[in-house]
Amino acid sequence: MSSYHLNHVNIRATSLEETRDFYAEVLGLEDGFRPPFPNPGYWMYAGDMPVIHISPLEAGSLPRTNPDGMGKGLDHFAMWGSGLAEQLAVLEKHGVEYHKRLAGGGAVIQVFFLDPNGVQIELGFNPEAEGITRDTFDGEILE
Amino acid sequence: MSSYHLNHVNIRATSLEETRDFYAEVLGLEDGFRPPFPNPGYWMYAGDMPVIHISPLEAGSLPRTNPDGMGKGLDHFAMWGSGLAEQLAVLEKHGVEYHKRLAGGGAVIQVFFLDPNGVQIELGFNPEAEGITRDTFDGEILE
Repeated sequence: MSSYHLNHVNIRATSLEETRDFYAEVLGLEDGFRPPFPNPGYWMYAGDMPVIHISPLEAGSLPRTNPDGMGKGLDHFAMWGSGLAEQLAVLEKHGVEYHKRLAGGGAVIQVFFLDPNGVQIELGFNPEAEGITRDTFDGEILE
Repeated sequence: MSSYHLNHVNIRATSLEETRDFYAEVLGLEDGFRPPFPNPGYWMYAGDMPVIHISPLEAGSLPRTNPDGMGKGLDHFAMWGSGLAEQLAVLEKHGVEYHKRLAGGGAVIQVFFLDPNGVQIELGFNPEAEGITRDTFDGEILE
């Protein structure tokens, strides 16, 4: 039985502000708290869930959903859950390569990997609930 | 205040079965109920939420998330809410073109449109809650 729930989708935007305003004005989402990340961006909330994450284009980024390319469009989706060690063991058993990092000022452990169609998946875990601190974390630390 | 919540992401798969098995075996999601649609596919559940919808490639479909293209990858994301008439008025006020249809054997009214980055958004509404029947619906009916 999965502990996961859908948390957000991440969109690479040609204009961060235009995209923020679209989700606010057209869908009534609220521009809210975003923990520290190196990139600028916005988290748009439906109730207490930050359902849309808006990120900037990055140099050399690849075409996303939009067939016109230019690196914009749906970048990844994210689910949150618990049981990091067990999940990593499952990924390793299935030969799925992953990248893990501590991000958001230490607020979240993120695990990134691809599905069979090249879709990027993010799994998020609460470091404290997983018994992990900045000192004991053995992956990338995003400052 | 938005009534929406994130409902699912839709993935175009090179192999429906390989993709189903990936989400079942690697993430522990469950292959569950899917209402009638013309295309084959799978809905993968986390608890009672069908968080991953798997659809086949379609002839002429466009590149999605995967930069290798071939029509596979993240196709759209979906939120569910209430207040169809009000939402359509907002879309029209902002000049956002949309397509609406009754789908899933009459179980859902779907409204599709693009964000400023070309990301396809689906909004889902319960026909009964919106006071709409098959006879009074004035959009496409997907049989």
